Amino acid sequence: MDYQALFQQIKLKKSFLCVGLDTDMKKIPQHLLKEEDPIFEFNKQIVDATADVTVAYKPNIAFYECLGAQGWISLQKTVDYIKSTYPEIFLIADAKRGDIGNTSKMYAGAFLENMAFDSITVAPYMGEDSVTPFLEYEGKWVILLALTSNKGAFDLQFFKEGDTHLFERVLEKSQQWGNKENMMYVVGATKAEMLADIRKIVPNHFLLVPGVGAQGGSLQKVAQFGMNDHCGLLVNSSRGIIYADNSLDFAKVAKEKASELQKEMEELLQNKGIL
Amino acid sequence: MDYQALFQQIKLKKSFLCVGLDTDMKKIPQHLLKEEDPIFEFNKQIVDATADVTVAYKPNIAFYECLGAQGWISLQKTVDYIKSTYPEIFLIADAKRGDIGNTSKMYAGAFLENMAFDSITVAPYMGEDSVTPFLEYEGKWVILLALTSNKGAFDLQFFKEGDTHLFERVLEKSQQWGNKENMMYVVGATKAEMLADIRKIVPNHFLLVPGVGAQGGSLQKVAQFGMNDHCGLLVNSSRGIIYADNSLDFAKVAKEKASELQKEMEELLQNKGIL
Repeated sequence: MDYQALFQQIKLKKSFLCVGLDTDMKKIPQHLLKEEDPIFEFNKQIVDATADVTVAYKPNIAFYECLGAQGWISLQKTVDYIKSTYPEIFLIADAKRGDIGNTSKMYAGAFLENMAFDSITVAPYMGEDSVTPFLEYEGKWVILLALTSNKGAFDLQFFKEGDTHLFERVLEKSQQWGNKENMMYVVGATKAEMLADIRKIVPNHFLLVPGVGAQGGSLQKVAQFGMNDHCGLLVNSSRGIIYADNSLDFAKVAKEKASELQKEMEELLQNKGIL
Repeated sequence: MDYQALFQQIKLKKSFLCVGLDTDMKKIPQHLLKEEDPIFEFNKQIVDATADVTVAYKPNIAFYECLGAQGWISLQKTVDYIKSTYPEIFLIADAKRGDIGNTSKMYAGAFLENMAFDSITVAPYMGEDSVTPFLEYEGKWVILLALTSNKGAFDLQFFKEGDTHLFERVLEKSQQWGNKENMMYVVGATKAEMLADIRKIVPNHFLLVPGVGAQGGSLQKVAQFGMNDHCGLLVNSSRGIIYADNSLDFAKVAKEKASELQKEMEELLQNKGIL
């Protein structure tokens, strides 16, 4: 999916919501455990309930990988279901991969070729040749870690050479590898004020913003400091939507929570003159 | 496996060789393709041929992941086979994982609990809470990326605050998270001279050194600058051993190549007074 198509979806759905599929056997409603593939069944019901207010889904790969081969099957089924039923949805493999060139190439094949993901989150530490193999697929995207939402972000990402923090160096340097048509950045909502400075370095790129809701970030602030005239934001919520309710009504309640965020997003898009 | 047990294995086998299982369906001998699980069969024969001169095996997870659920099954079988047949072997999941705390916990479960890996390679960019979940398993290890062997290492790892490069900051900072009993570092052999400075920061830790052979690093130099009185090195070779021959004799030739390295290592251990 290209830049313009993604922007069209945002305008059409009046939403820049990404729903994180951090699907955990211990947290899904008990009644699903009798299904042949509870993880897939949960994802399917969440997606069916929320797809009309959601621009992107983001399976968190760790949650599938910890189930071994069966988790991989549930993941594949989830991706196939979303792509065949809602082809307009932007699919993110939240995998945080990155290795030497020939190995990154294998990871790229796993997620962008063998599975129909539109994008994958990538860790920047190993530099250019660890990132570029993911950029070799037309219409697919790298979402590079820049400033993450966790406490540990302060350990290395603020390391400073002259006036430049490491995360700023990542933003600068990686523009030699990709562009706004095939690269996005992860910027945590818990550091929303910093989006103003980040926008000076990457005014036009899309940013994937985790950390709204459970991790404490504010959607208003993210939009205030981070939205550009093509929106330029995908804001993720995981637990606050998918685990909002644990009963037979879980998908209905997930839809309500997703819709609340969508309404807020619609207003923010209007304020910016995008709608 | 603890620090002393690993050192004992090194002395016993007169080797600090790690063999990388970067097993690729396109590169393994053709006659194996008729097997039910060619990847596992290749690994089994390589391991059986080389285990007496090898201290560690390092499956490169990307090579299994790109085969989907079947790859995961081949990986699990490989791990189970090595651990049941050669329990003294140190097993490394070369996965380069790292994410926010609750997600790293899932990855840790996948590799250190559900599978019997002794260790996992971890990317440091997201800081403390992305690394510590992997340290919660008694006798298991994090192998943290410090200075990698690829060209892209120069893009960010040499970013400099005052007199400290980013990779040195990783070495310093991470000593607050783990210690020489549960943490090692990846340091590429292509930058062997730098091992002297690295040893000033982490004199006692084990270093996992990729890049000898196909990537151009020298074993002599690695030992000269990086060996300590407990050896402190695991030197990896992948392609130079496992793909040295492509005929029916592939395992025999792999053994010859591994033995050549072991002989060289034995001499280096003797020179250091360890044997």
